[in-house]
Amino acid sequence: MTNIRELAKMAGVSVTTVSRVLNNHPYVSEEKRNAVLATIRESNYQPNINAIHLSMGKTFLVGVVVPYIEHPYFALLMKGMAIEALENNYKLVLFQSNYDEAKELDALKMLKQKQIDALIICSRICDWSTIEEFTPYGPIILCEDTRGKNVSSTYVDHYKTFIFALEYLYQKGHRKIGYSIGRKTGSNSIFRGMAFKDFIKDNHLPYEPAYIFDECLYFEDGERVISRIKQMADPPTALLITSDEVAAGIVTCAQQQNFSIPGDLALIGFNNQPIAKMMNITTIEIPLVEMGRQLFLQGIVDKEISYQEIPVTLIERQTV
Amino acid sequence: MTNIRELAKMAGVSVTTVSRVLNNHPYVSEEKRNAVLATIRESNYQPNINAIHLSMGKTFLVGVVVPYIEHPYFALLMKGMAIEALENNYKLVLFQSNYDEAKELDALKMLKQKQIDALIICSRICDWSTIEEFTPYGPIILCEDTRGKNVSSTYVDHYKTFIFALEYLYQKGHRKIGYSIGRKTGSNSIFRGMAFKDFIKDNHLPYEPAYIFDECLYFEDGERVISRIKQMADPPTALLITSDEVAAGIVTCAQQQNFSIPGDLALIGFNNQPIAKMMNITTIEIPLVEMGRQLFLQGIVDKEISYQEIPVTLIERQTV
Repeated sequence: MTNIRELAKMAGVSVTTVSRVLNNHPYVSEEKRNAVLATIRESNYQPNINAIHLSMGKTFLVGVVVPYIEHPYFALLMKGMAIEALENNYKLVLFQSNYDEAKELDALKMLKQKQIDALIICSRICDWSTIEEFTPYGPIILCEDTRGKNVSSTYVDHYKTFIFALEYLYQKGHRKIGYSIGRKTGSNSIFRGMAFKDFIKDNHLPYEPAYIFDECLYFEDGERVISRIKQMADPPTALLITSDEVAAGIVTCAQQQNFSIPGDLALIGFNNQPIAKMMNITTIEIPLVEMGRQLFLQGIVDKEISYQEIPVTLIERQTV
Repeated sequence: MTNIRELAKMAGVSVTTVSRVLNNHPYVSEEKRNAVLATIRESNYQPNINAIHLSMGKTFLVGVVVPYIEHPYFALLMKGMAIEALENNYKLVLFQSNYDEAKELDALKMLKQKQIDALIICSRICDWSTIEEFTPYGPIILCEDTRGKNVSSTYVDHYKTFIFALEYLYQKGHRKIGYSIGRKTGSNSIFRGMAFKDFIKDNHLPYEPAYIFDECLYFEDGERVISRIKQMADPPTALLITSDEVAAGIVTCAQQQNFSIPGDLALIGFNNQPIAKMMNITTIEIPLVEMGRQLFLQGIVDKEISYQEIPVTLIERQTV
């Protein structure tokens, strides 16, 4: 069988050019592309792409770790990555971790074994020292503030955003404020918790742990929030809900139980998903698809470590 | 560098056993696994997994084509696939096609070039003759009724299901019935259209094309359905909505516009997503996560072509 080196010689081009043509890479002149394709036809060459990738040390695969594929937050990030992967002739290799450390390690090991060219971790369970062990093997990109650390990131400053949203509620007259999050231990949740404590302290408000609702990820979690609030003697009057899905669940459940939003409880959602628009939920817009695109590009284009903060916007609707 | 053959010889096992150990494959005795791992430690062998896969003719990658990653229907199918991929030490390679034929062809070509071991197409844009060209290169699995064709499938009988749901509405007294779908031209939509026409004819009802709503995929599409119905002189009294998301959008929009569900319009959703439960939407339950698991297993385990019909269940709630 003709191999890629012979083919390159026959076509009068470099091995890199042949591999680019075989990978549909855009940066090849029309003339060279035609020369390679003509030689392939004449020589009856059946390219083994895996062998070519092996010889190039590239796979054109980028790994993506998400805890839950079906959650809209991660699905929208992946949509953005998929758009850029398509544009750049890469494919995404998906790891659903369920926040199982061993599964995240599997993904990191694939980077070490050069089965993927870069790894994007959308939400991390491994600690920093583990991640850092793998940085020599290829780009690792995170979706959290990594400033000062040796991995790239596209992130929202959740401390600043939380302070901003809390001040908005304060200005609207709220003094009993709480919030909901997904995992308690996630890096984003830690920044949010710090912001909340600082805000409470700066404004001389009492700290009420019962106003913090964790494990709130899905529409149906809204039901739990409403039922807990209804049992409180001194309930919060406003909540930051870090997922529009959960905020939509709260609105739906409140309607069924004649609980007034924002009368009994004001809400600010996060992300500005279509459901927030249709349900008139005030929310912090986070451009998730755009973030996904940036995360992907940091993996395959940027050679230097970079930290990209994504600005967010308050969308005022009818739940505050 | 020690290669896999030398390593196998040193450890006193077969090359297959070494590759299984390196791939964390479960079917290796503890004794042999330990022998291989000890030899690796002693020889300082750095396995190049890509070279091993190349020599085995396997990649442990399964391709998945979905038109839109972020749609809950596809996200739930992918969740099921991801669960089985994890169980079986495979990874998923994701193709977001946006129903662009060239992108689906890219995925089929990856199968041809042995960059993936199998390809699952969750919703197809290529025609049959194109798909069939690629069947010699590896398993292709579809999520539609392929009985009589030479590709495997896990599917819902959408003809039968639509007839069943239409009869339910008929027994509840409805005579002006319509439905919503995603794409007009998809295989599932064609079966549903046939069922609708047969049902209308058998029950001597007039065929009203305005009662058919296409391009209904997301929550926000519910708004368009309600606004079109409000403009009709003779609107339908009941709709089959082939996505719970869209049904939830209709319910939300109807509430805002004082349009009664089911008084003015009865609805049956599809899939039984959590949002349908919380909004009390009557729906046809389709076990999407389980379907995803089966699709994956047909790709990597089954050697013969198989057709698996998935049964569905009507969940009666409050929208009919």
